[in-house]
Amino acid sequence: MHTDAPERMSLVLFSGTADKLTAAATLTTGAAAMGMEVDLFLTFWGLEAFKKDAAGSVPLVSAEFAELGPMMREVMQAKRVPSWLDTLRGAREIGEVKVYACSATMERV
Amino acid sequence: MHTDAPERMSLVLFSGTADKLTAAATLTTGAAAMGMEVDLFLTFWGLEAFKKDAAGSVPLVSAEFAELGPMMREVMQAKRVPSWLDTLRGAREIGEVKVYACSATMERV
Amino acid sequence: MHTDAPERMSLVLFSGTADKLTAAATLTTGAAAMGMEVDLFLTFWGLEAFKKDAAGSVPLVSAEFAELGPMMREVMQAKRVPSWLDTLRGAREIGEVKVYACSATMERV
Repeated sequence: MHTDAPERMSLVLFSGTADKLTAAATLTTGAAAMGMEVDLFLTFWGLEAFKKDAAGSVPLVSAEFAELGPMMREVMQAKRVPSWLDTLRGAREIGEVKVYACSATMERV
Repeated sequence: MHTDAPERMSLVLFSGTADKLTAAATLTTGAAAMGMEVDLFLTFWGLEAFKKDAAGSVPLVSAEFAELGPMMREVMQAKRVPSWLDTLRGAREIGEVKVYACSATMERV
Repeated sequence: MHTDAPERMSLVLFSGTADKLTAAATLTTGAAAMGMEVDLFLTFWGLEAFKKDAAGSVPLVSAEFAELGPMMREVMQAKRVPSWLDTLRGAREIGEVKVYACSATMERV
């Protein structure tokens, strides 16, 4: 643990594409491993992606890079990269990671 | 007002889709209500969305979720959720919210 | 230099579209000119855009505004706005700008 690291990190997960969720899960893991408290606030499509039945409907990549999605999936499977959701679960086991859902989003969709 | 809250929040509004603008307006309202000073910096498509004649041309949702746009609009209308612009106007009435326009963007478009 | 400015700024460059990279390069230049240390962390499509052979394949604008891309390019050329990459190079000459590449992304693509 870096002794001069900030004590907490807060992320708003707005987007529900697997590429951004993977980046957020990786940041969360690193911060948790450094002893930081992490607050994740899920809103809009970021909250949608965490629904129980969302697994198959989460877009793989940001729209600008849609054509690279299948390549990304293939490489990540070949390298056995865990899914963003499993990465987040791991982060919660190694550190203090709190997840909040946006109540306004929950009422809307 | 949380006495240990940070004193200010700065947001760069780069994207000009109604979903992200709604999230930014909601964050701004919460921060203003907590007594924080809020600085909003409008650039690129985020600035475009604030133009007088932009109301009809602001994309409703991020591209990855375009197909969910009509559903979102319907639910928000049914629940009488105010528009992101009206939400921001309300935030300016309850707290210290400053809005800055990117001069480079203004010269370009 | 603002004497009460924060001492450093950290940006994660996740997206690889020229509009967002331009905004990041502009923020970096301003921060460097104010004497701040800037850390840029390149990941996913943001790292792709920095590859030697990427120049021609970087999408010009975010997907929601794709139709405005040609207009943006035209105006920026008419006004001789430097590219985001040249802007970043300039920032590195006037201040302390460190660039980090995401090792996980480098292994994947």
